[in-house]
Amino acid sequence: MTDSLIDQFAIEQLLYCYAAAADARDGEAYCGCFVDGQVRIRGQYEISDGHEVVRLLREYYPWTMHNVHNRLYTVEGDRASGFCYCVASHATWRDGKPYKLDLYIRYDDELQRTAHGWRFVSRHLDVLAETVVALEPQ
Amino acid sequence: MTDSLIDQFAIEQLLYCYAAAADARDGEAYCGCFVDGQVRIRGQYEISDGHEVVRLLREYYPWTMHNVHNRLYTVEGDRASGFCYCVASHATWRDGKPYKLDLYIRYDDELQRTAHGWRFVSRHLDVLAETVVALEPQ
Amino acid sequence: MTDSLIDQFAIEQLLYCYAAAADARDGEAYCGCFVDGQVRIRGQYEISDGHEVVRLLREYYPWTMHNVHNRLYTVEGDRASGFCYCVASHATWRDGKPYKLDLYIRYDDELQRTAHGWRFVSRHLDVLAETVVALEPQ
Repeated sequence: MTDSLIDQFAIEQLLYCYAAAADARDGEAYCGCFVDGQVRIRGQYEISDGHEVVRLLREYYPWTMHNVHNRLYTVEGDRASGFCYCVASHATWRDGKPYKLDLYIRYDDELQRTAHGWRFVSRHLDVLAETVVALEPQ
Repeated sequence: MTDSLIDQFAIEQLLYCYAAAADARDGEAYCGCFVDGQVRIRGQYEISDGHEVVRLLREYYPWTMHNVHNRLYTVEGDRASGFCYCVASHATWRDGKPYKLDLYIRYDDELQRTAHGWRFVSRHLDVLAETVVALEPQ
Repeated sequence: MTDSLIDQFAIEQLLYCYAAAADARDGEAYCGCFVDGQVRIRGQYEISDGHEVVRLLREYYPWTMHNVHNRLYTVEGDRASGFCYCVASHATWRDGKPYKLDLYIRYDDELQRTAHGWRFVSRHLDVLAETVVALEPQ
């Protein structure tokens, strides 16, 4: 049971490391969240090039914050699966004014225990809702 | 101390299961979060019929996402109590346009250890604030 | 490894206790989150008087909710460091109408294990974005 808690904590930290890598525009860290460094995002977006994701984030959004919520994962041996929510806030512009685009995401994940810890095999990404709200001047 | 961590993790997962059941419109799972399957929500809403809650969610909101935050619970033997926050996002319409209604909720909970794991005895629900923001077309 | 989980859980609960103390306008509890009760907030705000913070919150905001997300902390002996996100919602007024001011915060923290548990040595606070959204009448 303690082993299970250790696994659950490691999976939680992986979810946060993924978010931190995206927000820091860190391509190495972003790819490193997946088994063998191979990004596999499925669903509305089909993404296999993690460095390209990071490049696009850097190009289009001066700032993002990926807040991860409600993780429910089941571990079976060296595999795990489950889902979490993520509200991904993106600073952007419309008509020259600063806005915050929020994506309400559900990630359905497959994970694998590796020699380096838990890693994503794949993430199925569904954007369930989007809002755009004006940003205050900073 | 490890036992305490196991209890805390189980309580955290119960909070997320409750949210997932509401969002999936799963009446069985929703009621199953409470001792003996008996929903007991107190405060601004007095709810004892979990299947009715789920029916209303299905009827009025094409989509919800209950994001749970900041849980602070104390375990004493087979009882636990504490509170968490929840930002509950509901897709809805106003004047024919899609909107997101966000309820800022505080749940004060009483819990009991059962043969099937931790369950809610009752949840005291306070909606502390509400916002309505336009949803982007999907 | 179990010790590490115990530390990580204690640090998580400290983050939530800090949020709860601010939201409850509880100066004693707020200061008590820091080593020797000495508040040390750095960055955009330089704060050392915790009771003054609580007084300002009480004076200017009828309601706040500090939602804490994505904690990534590393423990080394009796010290820990890391960061979390926080979306801090504040009820306020503009032109006599109720609004919700949301601060998107990153906290970079230094922590120390004390006889009373983990406490902040200092918190470096960065407000990364702000939004203002109308509150629904309650």
